[in-house]
Amino acid sequence: MQPVNIGVIGLGNVGSGTLDILAENADQIALKLGFPLRVAAVCSRGVVHKQIPAALGAPLRTADWREVVDHPDIQIVAELIGGTTVAREIIEAAAAKGKSVVTANKELMAASGADLWDQAIASGINLAMEASVAGGIPIHTVLREGISGDRVTNFYGILNGTCNYILTEIERRGAGFEEVLQEAQAAGYAEADPTADVDGFDARSKLVILSALAFGERIFPADVYTEGIRRISPIDFGYAHILNHTIRLVCMARQTPEGLLLSVRPSLIPQSTILAGVRGAYNAIWVRGRYGADTFYYGRGAGAHPTGVAVVSDLMRVAREIRSGSPERVSPFAHARLGEYCPIPITLNRAAYYLRFRVKDRPGIIAQLAAALAAENISIEAVLQLPEENASNLPFVITVEPTTEASIRAALARMEKLDFLTEPPLAMPMEASL
Amino acid sequence: MQPVNIGVIGLGNVGSGTLDILAENADQIALKLGFPLRVAAVCSRGVVHKQIPAALGAPLRTADWREVVDHPDIQIVAELIGGTTVAREIIEAAAAKGKSVVTANKELMAASGADLWDQAIASGINLAMEASVAGGIPIHTVLREGISGDRVTNFYGILNGTCNYILTEIERRGAGFEEVLQEAQAAGYAEADPTADVDGFDARSKLVILSALAFGERIFPADVYTEGIRRISPIDFGYAHILNHTIRLVCMARQTPEGLLLSVRPSLIPQSTILAGVRGAYNAIWVRGRYGADTFYYGRGAGAHPTGVAVVSDLMRVAREIRSGSPERVSPFAHARLGEYCPIPITLNRAAYYLRFRVKDRPGIIAQLAAALAAENISIEAVLQLPEENASNLPFVITVEPTTEASIRAALARMEKLDFLTEPPLAMPMEASL
Repeated sequence: MQPVNIGVIGLGNVGSGTLDILAENADQIALKLGFPLRVAAVCSRGVVHKQIPAALGAPLRTADWREVVDHPDIQIVAELIGGTTVAREIIEAAAAKGKSVVTANKELMAASGADLWDQAIASGINLAMEASVAGGIPIHTVLREGISGDRVTNFYGILNGTCNYILTEIERRGAGFEEVLQEAQAAGYAEADPTADVDGFDARSKLVILSALAFGERIFPADVYTEGIRRISPIDFGYAHILNHTIRLVCMARQTPEGLLLSVRPSLIPQSTILAGVRGAYNAIWVRGRYGADTFYYGRGAGAHPTGVAVVSDLMRVAREIRSGSPERVSPFAHARLGEYCPIPITLNRAAYYLRFRVKDRPGIIAQLAAALAAENISIEAVLQLPEENASNLPFVITVEPTTEASIRAALARMEKLDFLTEPPLAMPMEASL
Repeated sequence: MQPVNIGVIGLGNVGSGTLDILAENADQIALKLGFPLRVAAVCSRGVVHKQIPAALGAPLRTADWREVVDHPDIQIVAELIGGTTVAREIIEAAAAKGKSVVTANKELMAASGADLWDQAIASGINLAMEASVAGGIPIHTVLREGISGDRVTNFYGILNGTCNYILTEIERRGAGFEEVLQEAQAAGYAEADPTADVDGFDARSKLVILSALAFGERIFPADVYTEGIRRISPIDFGYAHILNHTIRLVCMARQTPEGLLLSVRPSLIPQSTILAGVRGAYNAIWVRGRYGADTFYYGRGAGAHPTGVAVVSDLMRVAREIRSGSPERVSPFAHARLGEYCPIPITLNRAAYYLRFRVKDRPGIIAQLAAALAAENISIEAVLQLPEENASNLPFVITVEPTTEASIRAALARMEKLDFLTEPPLAMPMEASL
């Protein structure tokens, strides 16, 4: 049968993984589809002579993406260069030519996904983006089709493999954040500039995309309260374990009567939950629906081949659709616009909290901290102190009963004046609804 | 917009859950699709006057399924009665009328899925069956679309919630199989006749369907080595824990150079694996692909609403397809027929094994058992004995290094003659490849 022709733009990690799979797995792909996928053009900037698998034959090779988008044979463009400028040009140019797009671009889809989807629908093309979130986990397919009949009420994700690797190494070995980060950089698990990962921005993009899919509202990065993992120390794991919890960078989306709470932040989660078992560079998403109750999805968050599977699976779905005639489409972003899921400020979040202090030891400390909490009507659940020799920088923990983030912040503001604190208190929610 | 019209046949647990969701979640369903789903007819035998949600209006009500299939408005038939006789008639009659079918029928799809799919393709209809396996987990969608670009090499599932509930209760409380089964029956977790569940036949149907989807070969229940959980006792969990393992009814499909190994049997799995954390009536599937590495899916295995979500999500997908014009279809059963994944006998399985004996204690027992193993070239890994007072029925365990199932069976045959055994040895594989 006639193939569907593909142009691949970008031959980095994901692009190379995608070509490997299209070459090696071509027979099964053709059997599943009923027709083959053919790579008709490949674009890479600079490294035009980079090896491509021999089984792909001799596709057009170019350093100019316009040649791919304009190529008359090409029916689907795979945008695998990342970033928000050229990538956007490519997607808009492809749409203008009536060509469907498969993208792995989380940053662009988080910032402009709803707009790009509106353009895609106006142009009659499909815009597939499974690879933009959680590499090897088909969470887009699950939300779009697998559980489309359900009404998602909340989900919790571990969506940044670098942070999860760092946190689980701190937990496993008791090493400090900086030490583990440097090792992760040396081993290639973390970028030279780790900001996007360890400060939560990468995870935020993914949370924005999944929230838009799950709730059908326009959601933007600014709607998400975001806090990274730089302040987490081995002592925090020590206290968390006493509380039968662990610490992860949790991406939360939770419907409340007031609206949708969105956050990326280090959080305590009970050790008995399945999310607590996610270690190393893995990703996972725990979803609760009104009807389907809880489901859980787990896999590699990155890597050439796991992410390549997401790209190739999208290519197959879009190709199948091209073959059968394009259907009516509904944007996976902002399909609902019910207003039911409007993002609300994180100050409305209600949870139990873990507060970790470092102090110069002297009498009366707990009394003063307790007074600050009492002034905001916050009830103390427990006061914990592990043995520690350094009395000039003594860590200890107070956990409090469920209260609002606003109250916690007000109490923390009261504590700012206390001169025995050697650093600002660290506050983390304790997620009980998992 | 014009709705797509549905006929629901069967108002048991799953049928009622499906109607609830179609009624309560109608607004979101219409938003996601761009058009509404309308329940135009409902068929239930005997209980025609069973309550249906008021929001569904006044669909045709009948006790005769032919009225639903023949109804000129109806575009999709939901077959939710189960069984293999009338259900098959319904699906064949709908196909003959050019109507697509959504089914929750694992027994029928395991026995005749490939044939029914051939009929469906010949009739130009779709045949969706997400609800037939693992209720709330969208594993069909994952295999069909989410990771369709990958090449699955093996998977392990916990696919029977009743067995998992019973096993985890034995583990948690140290109660015996019969006691826990009776409690499960009283609580409605197990049927009055528990055979289909506890002897592994229900799980086998699900393994057959998932294997067909994952590998694209014709696979039949007879291809699956099947063993139930009746012989598992608290003492087995005691020994398994010493070995840092637990015991689950594991559905395995594993590609080997010789072919495909398929089994449903109680197995030891390492406690450190994510599958070992699946407790109670939950289901889970761990999948390994050549490119995507490992992914894991978890959720409710049954229940009116979780399974209803699967039915409704299938209805949405099929309705979307009807709207856009039916595409070319490829059977999800037997699409490959590469011969690469032909089922092979379980005697070719290679694994470490756990062997549990019950004996009348006397000198020389271990020597005689060791001789039987040595005669089959099987190496002993460990001999374990927990304290036990009853010397006339003393349990103990031997674990052996990886060998074939054929060798294990030959050794067990040699042991048959040994008069100190008070019951036949219990052999379980120890799954290391998870």
